[in-house]
Amino acid sequence: MNIRSNPDKTVPAVTTGPLPSSRKIFASPDAAPDLRVPLREIILSEGAGEPNLPVYDTSGPYTDPSVTIDVNAGLARSRKQWVLERGGVEEYEGRQIKPEDNGSVSADKAARAFSAYHKPLRGLDGHKITQLEFARAGIITKEMIYVAARENLGRKQQLERAEAALADGESFGAAVPAFITPEFVRDEIARGRAIIPSNINHSELEPMIIGRNFLTKINANIGNSAVTSSVEEEVEKMVWAIRWGADTVMDLSTGRNIHTTREWILRNSPVPIGTVPIYQALEKCNGDPVQLTWELYKDTLIEQCEQGVDYFTIHAGVRLQYIHLTANRVTGIVSRGGSIMAKWCLAHHKESFLYTHFDEICDLMRKYDVSFSLGDGLRPGSIADANDRAQFAELETLGELTKIAWDKGCQVMIEGPGHVPMHKIKINMDKQLKECGEAPFYTLGPLTTDIAPGYDHITSGIGAAMIGWFGCAMLCYVTPKEHLGLPDRNDVKTGVITYKIAAHASDLAKGHPAAQLRDDALSRARFEFRWTDQFNLGLDPDTAKSFHDETLPKEAHKVAHFCSMCGPKFCSMKITQDVRDYAATLNDPNSVGMSIQGTVEDGMAKMSEKFKEMGSSVYLDAEKVKESNRVL
Amino acid sequence: MNIRSNPDKTVPAVTTGPLPSSRKIFASPDAAPDLRVPLREIILSEGAGEPNLPVYDTSGPYTDPSVTIDVNAGLARSRKQWVLERGGVEEYEGRQIKPEDNGSVSADKAARAFSAYHKPLRGLDGHKITQLEFARAGIITKEMIYVAARENLGRKQQLERAEAALADGESFGAAVPAFITPEFVRDEIARGRAIIPSNINHSELEPMIIGRNFLTKINANIGNSAVTSSVEEEVEKMVWAIRWGADTVMDLSTGRNIHTTREWILRNSPVPIGTVPIYQALEKCNGDPVQLTWELYKDTLIEQCEQGVDYFTIHAGVRLQYIHLTANRVTGIVSRGGSIMAKWCLAHHKESFLYTHFDEICDLMRKYDVSFSLGDGLRPGSIADANDRAQFAELETLGELTKIAWDKGCQVMIEGPGHVPMHKIKINMDKQLKECGEAPFYTLGPLTTDIAPGYDHITSGIGAAMIGWFGCAMLCYVTPKEHLGLPDRNDVKTGVITYKIAAHASDLAKGHPAAQLRDDALSRARFEFRWTDQFNLGLDPDTAKSFHDETLPKEAHKVAHFCSMCGPKFCSMKITQDVRDYAATLNDPNSVGMSIQGTVEDGMAKMSEKFKEMGSSVYLDAEKVKESNRVL
Repeated sequence: MNIRSNPDKTVPAVTTGPLPSSRKIFASPDAAPDLRVPLREIILSEGAGEPNLPVYDTSGPYTDPSVTIDVNAGLARSRKQWVLERGGVEEYEGRQIKPEDNGSVSADKAARAFSAYHKPLRGLDGHKITQLEFARAGIITKEMIYVAARENLGRKQQLERAEAALADGESFGAAVPAFITPEFVRDEIARGRAIIPSNINHSELEPMIIGRNFLTKINANIGNSAVTSSVEEEVEKMVWAIRWGADTVMDLSTGRNIHTTREWILRNSPVPIGTVPIYQALEKCNGDPVQLTWELYKDTLIEQCEQGVDYFTIHAGVRLQYIHLTANRVTGIVSRGGSIMAKWCLAHHKESFLYTHFDEICDLMRKYDVSFSLGDGLRPGSIADANDRAQFAELETLGELTKIAWDKGCQVMIEGPGHVPMHKIKINMDKQLKECGEAPFYTLGPLTTDIAPGYDHITSGIGAAMIGWFGCAMLCYVTPKEHLGLPDRNDVKTGVITYKIAAHASDLAKGHPAAQLRDDALSRARFEFRWTDQFNLGLDPDTAKSFHDETLPKEAHKVAHFCSMCGPKFCSMKITQDVRDYAATLNDPNSVGMSIQGTVEDGMAKMSEKFKEMGSSVYLDAEKVKESNRVL
Repeated sequence: MNIRSNPDKTVPAVTTGPLPSSRKIFASPDAAPDLRVPLREIILSEGAGEPNLPVYDTSGPYTDPSVTIDVNAGLARSRKQWVLERGGVEEYEGRQIKPEDNGSVSADKAARAFSAYHKPLRGLDGHKITQLEFARAGIITKEMIYVAARENLGRKQQLERAEAALADGESFGAAVPAFITPEFVRDEIARGRAIIPSNINHSELEPMIIGRNFLTKINANIGNSAVTSSVEEEVEKMVWAIRWGADTVMDLSTGRNIHTTREWILRNSPVPIGTVPIYQALEKCNGDPVQLTWELYKDTLIEQCEQGVDYFTIHAGVRLQYIHLTANRVTGIVSRGGSIMAKWCLAHHKESFLYTHFDEICDLMRKYDVSFSLGDGLRPGSIADANDRAQFAELETLGELTKIAWDKGCQVMIEGPGHVPMHKIKINMDKQLKECGEAPFYTLGPLTTDIAPGYDHITSGIGAAMIGWFGCAMLCYVTPKEHLGLPDRNDVKTGVITYKIAAHASDLAKGHPAAQLRDDALSRARFEFRWTDQFNLGLDPDTAKSFHDETLPKEAHKVAHFCSMCGPKFCSMKITQDVRDYAATLNDPNSVGMSIQGTVEDGMAKMSEKFKEMGSSVYLDAEKVKESNRVL
């Protein structure tokens, strides 16, 4: 990989280049052969005896050596054409950027503005704009065709094992098909069970789908805070997060340069970008929630709709009447958005303006096809507070709001907790499905214990894998720095990889028809001592290789038929190969057979001799390994 | 902590000193006031407003500043008296140590022998020796009293919340009581549902119990291999592993100095030590499984029984008739013990000598009260091979062997997989309980996906937490180096902490009556911005503190009422406190009340004004934080 050097220090340096032994390939869907749907092909070693493995690829053009990356210019805006060609939109002079959009920074502290201004698009009255509206009308969009191809992981048709895998899994009522068609995508969106977060102004987007009948997705949060971080770091954090597998990225920036930072991120992002608009609104009234108004909030929504944000977290379920329910909690209200709105409601002793103006919010977001991510402002912040009345009261309101948003034509997903012990996780999933009419669930963790600050990627990875299995469509990552500080580059990677594990584990458990292909390929490589294939098929080839090299650094050891755990004199995997060779002789009519039920003393001596002959080359001499590049 | 300097380089340097803000305390059980049952008390900051928190302590005398540690002399051998006072044993001249016990090392490569030789004890015919035999006879041993006190985590009696916690959890048929009594321990052991691994020759032991109605335990593997490691490192690895919470340690050493290494570990270990005796037996025939004999194996068992090993992994369920069932697996036989025995069976075309001599093995182990850990030699090594016929056929045989061992008076636990996707985990647990008469289950992971080499502590931590919840009594840790290399010091710590998380998450989910006390204490500290308490109550205070310090290093920030995620201008936790203050006014007859059902316009203005008054001190000024040690 290359981390681009940056001579003038104003252009963000970003990480480019393919992952080890990988190349970008493109699927060309039958329904729209002009589309180029990216996949990553993991190239196996010579003599692997099996084809290269295509895997889902979130990394965008950054891992494509044929694309020249210029973060100053942004990514190609191919998707604009898709939006224009189906009509119903207009280009217009957008809202004027105001100093307060960037925290009223002084000139010396202002980040460099993004080079180009793209006039925004918006939907015209009486026309279909959102993916939901098209789906309901029976229209398959290019976005739908694109995600269908993507979800099939390079399969051109249903594989033989797909039905078997599905039958073997336990999907808890999900309806994952053996092969994803554009029509299936359309139907799932029409039913509200899946969304394609895709603001019509996010022209750089490589569309993806979120729903429990698709691959489980993960989100990575990035964002500066008042204390640290810069715009350059944020763009690179996005690129870094998608390199390792983040399916969407939320920009949770606050403070200075918030508009400009977001512009840079959006113009360079191939994945959907989510935000929590109340954060920026709060900045515009100097951090005082009491001063928030509907007008100021609405203006912020318009600002972000025009920029191309794909989904908004909106905490419209934090109603005045629920707030006192949190008073006896161990950790009260831990959601920032939730506590902002609670503060506002209490100060004014009024119902939340997000709730009272929900219709207007829908009308606005529909015009740009910004998806709702209905926020869980009253989520539990500790094991003690899990599944309490405050949490579930809000969830019921989110269900009510889901139906309103659907009626308005908006795509919707629902955010979920938080801190939940294992035995209370499924209740969350089941209640969400019931209350919210199967709208996709998008949870933070959940963390299954509070006692491990510094390891909350793990406490939450456990809960994330489980809720993903139970039906959660997207898992919001948690990094090792959770509760303690802001994640750095390594923390972002650790968080993303941990959540890829959780998401993949849940795909396996649901019986996703293509998920296990990668496990099997890696396990074969492991069994056959193809060390480099084992590294490259893993989620993090660099770390796997470096761990191996700590014990056995030489290149020759990459083909050694032993590993450092057992040493060269003895290896269980090698012995297994002998067992396999032996079993093969059982089917050989010239050989002495062995019945499944057991053995008889007759013939034992003969078989024993036979095996001794066969097994003569089982053990390796450590010295020979050093001499040879390829042992056995 | 201190890592002892080591002037003459022959005495292992080990880590001593208490964990941050912790001190060793001792419970004195009513049933045996002479016993000193160790606990770790986490000392909270002044003004915490709640008592210090006692937690389970596996670390032994190494964290007790009042004990002078001399690894050369070993730990105090207090438990010998317990064994002698109940009689039925004799001291005798043990087996002579032979050069082949240490891999026939030359003098220049020989590790320094342990300073003292302790004559071994063994049981006399016609006497009760094992904890199981005592339990069945209705006799409560000191070991039982000790573990009962330990399991209660410093509680002198049943807490009010204990029944509620149990009712809240889902234990899948386990029978965790609200308070552990010695009689309950005895009964569980008598029923075979729990074991106290406690060789009568391991006099340094601080007894612990393994069973699904007790706290979930974890094991850490250590051990050199032919490629790396030294005796000094192994002793320190044990001390390091128990410092962070390993309940038992398995010494999986092979190669040189194997006997001497084990002696050093045992004489310095307060936790049960497990081994896989076939590894040493294999060394004695130069690594060739075909040369193994029952006599050689038996001699190795005697050697290790006399040293004081507390449990043996014995792969007696790898029967000749099952071996061919692994031939079509993706990863064949991955257990070392399993593949050694498979090789032997095939080479001789005979039933395993571990199976045919199982009665004799029982008679021998009973004399020393060495517990069985019946090994799963045919466990799956990949997702593809999970829950296959080979695995379950062996498990059924382990069930048969469990009953034989019980009849002989031996304590038994059962080892389990391995690599298992989430939806196949519970089947393992349920089948194990059924086949093995509820004998404790002891699993490796399971790993829930194969695709993340370098992160298998996480792929397996997910499965471990789940199977622990379902009823698994002990979880064998997996480190980040699994499949890639030997764990170093940091890997051991990461593995142990990850598994403490998994074990604790399962205790919470089962509804263990005292587990959540620690979560609640930590969450209160978090909510009240008692940063140092939050660090110290966590599983790894050092890492938590260092992560926090990366963003906010100053001492003043440890009492700051904000964290780096939100910055000083805005903090959701602070707002919650306002909500709480506000809710309190609802119960104040002089205040304007708010009905739970909702609000009315009347009185809104008044309440609004009132809250504005109350909330005037909500926001902190960043500059003031710098000036003051204690803000608000």
